[in-house]
Amino acid sequence: MSADWRLKARKHLDNLAIPQGSLGDLLGLAEQLAAVKESLRPSVTSKAVVTMAADHGVVEEGVSAFPREVTPQMVANFVAGGAAINVLAGVVGARVVVVDMGVGSDLDRSFEGKVLFRKVDYGTRNMVQGPAMSREQAVKSLETGIEIAGRLVREGVELLATGDMGIGNTTPSSAILAAFSGYPVREVTGRGTGIGDDALENKIRVIEKALDVNSPDPADPVDVLAKVGGFEIGGIAGLILGAARHKVPVLVDGFISSAGALLAKRLAPPSLDYMIAAHQSLESGHRLMLEELGLKPLLNLNLRLGEGTGAALAMNIVESAAQVINKMLTFEDAGVSRKS
Amino acid sequence: MSADWRLKARKHLDNLAIPQGSLGDLLGLAEQLAAVKESLRPSVTSKAVVTMAADHGVVEEGVSAFPREVTPQMVANFVAGGAAINVLAGVVGARVVVVDMGVGSDLDRSFEGKVLFRKVDYGTRNMVQGPAMSREQAVKSLETGIEIAGRLVREGVELLATGDMGIGNTTPSSAILAAFSGYPVREVTGRGTGIGDDALENKIRVIEKALDVNSPDPADPVDVLAKVGGFEIGGIAGLILGAARHKVPVLVDGFISSAGALLAKRLAPPSLDYMIAAHQSLESGHRLMLEELGLKPLLNLNLRLGEGTGAALAMNIVESAAQVINKMLTFEDAGVSRKS
Repeated sequence: MSADWRLKARKHLDNLAIPQGSLGDLLGLAEQLAAVKESLRPSVTSKAVVTMAADHGVVEEGVSAFPREVTPQMVANFVAGGAAINVLAGVVGARVVVVDMGVGSDLDRSFEGKVLFRKVDYGTRNMVQGPAMSREQAVKSLETGIEIAGRLVREGVELLATGDMGIGNTTPSSAILAAFSGYPVREVTGRGTGIGDDALENKIRVIEKALDVNSPDPADPVDVLAKVGGFEIGGIAGLILGAARHKVPVLVDGFISSAGALLAKRLAPPSLDYMIAAHQSLESGHRLMLEELGLKPLLNLNLRLGEGTGAALAMNIVESAAQVINKMLTFEDAGVSRKS
Repeated sequence: MSADWRLKARKHLDNLAIPQGSLGDLLGLAEQLAAVKESLRPSVTSKAVVTMAADHGVVEEGVSAFPREVTPQMVANFVAGGAAINVLAGVVGARVVVVDMGVGSDLDRSFEGKVLFRKVDYGTRNMVQGPAMSREQAVKSLETGIEIAGRLVREGVELLATGDMGIGNTTPSSAILAAFSGYPVREVTGRGTGIGDDALENKIRVIEKALDVNSPDPADPVDVLAKVGGFEIGGIAGLILGAARHKVPVLVDGFISSAGALLAKRLAPPSLDYMIAAHQSLESGHRLMLEELGLKPLLNLNLRLGEGTGAALAMNIVESAAQVINKMLTFEDAGVSRKS
């Protein structure tokens, strides 16, 4: 990212006809957009939320409140346009791009053209019995995300956002955070879609066992993804890397997306400059995840749904920041007196 | 507000195809909109931000970093479309309605049709020397706000938002909060547009003196408005009362707008049900103001500009909540399995 453009942007923003700094976090965001896009007229008009779906073998350990069949059912709901992500993306005029990264069953062929078919496999394997996927599959899921980012940028998308759908996917996300950070599993594990106390204790034991059985190497992000990750999480990491490669800002949704962001950061630290944390999820562990990333979330609305919903909600703020730097008048242009 | 509609709304929202409660604060907001509009299909498509401008005699005590001439200059900037409120309202498709509630000079007649001319007087009097305005003027400013709300609702506006412009207006806002709450002036007084330490000490002394000289009666909100208020603050309070009267939700912007909201709540407690706190301002004292109101802000972006900017940014969230209840599918309609 260009420090030079950041400086140019700050200089312009300091001259807007407002008390210095009074637009708060919008100003830092506008600076980031200018630096990412290398322009004082950054545009984020064309928007897309990429919602990546996959299944998880570890669900057979009883880590989720919902049955596995919900993953393809929700993909069908995305296609029908009745899910939260359709509605919230619609409000800000964003496309929703649904990707089958590894749903456990074959999707209806009528979804062709409405879903990107990129199945790496029919769900991961149960990570308490060995690696969730092979190293080749981990690389393939990353490459798929990179490919999709490139395709969307070529189609004109100027602002990307991540999203996920996958019953059980808070479990690998917590495992990834624990593997990289060294935090005790208990501190980074929450209730996901809403499990009770006993199920939470079981979930913690399952994650501890998966880390114990697989010993993922925190110095090797592909190893972490392969051993305790998921196909949609790898896809999200790849999407972020692709966004950075093409100098497009990318909104990171909640807990699962942040696990993907953590992988991206570990794989290529400069990718962090292109990320915008959309919101602070209610999922316990997300606060530590954002700290580990070093990102400050724009929203805190007690969301814990995923799909990209928090990112879709934050798109209005990113658009607003872009328009502030594009359209507002300076003291001189507006004929307004400065501070006395 | 209808508790019955709130219940009906909750029942519907509980059946949406998401883990229960996972859309966080959007769900409570959707409930409020349904209850306010007495409909499970609340619409907030037609939006308006009402930015009320006025001057303040107390500015001659040196309470502001900017000279008084900035108030009409910023009104001109609103008319030209180059201010933050124009830009941010534009992002969400909201109208900006600028009102001269009491600017200290005559506005350019060419603004006719672009500004509502409702001048109660050429700025308030200096409240350290006596009441800021007469009781009649206080009533007139409230009535003006009520009238404007009615006019906009007749024109089809479905979501209102408050905004302010007035050099010096954090001073009466802090005075109003202190008068109602009994908090020490120091705790509710901040740096406004950015005054230094000495000026802040002076501002605190000025507010203490104004309260001492006028002894506003906290049991009589019109007395508080008259003695230590401002014309735009009265107008904002009236706008909120008018919104409640017409069953239209109203987004309350930052510190100055919240002072108006406090007046509205004291004048008619049920008006609170129609208010939505847009954001937590960086202005110290706003946290206590929101506590006094009993409202939880949607955003916390370190804004401290006013104009209605925080309210404009929050409109996307209100629109999103409305669309969630309007458009999302239930478990049954989407064919998605429930929690096992």
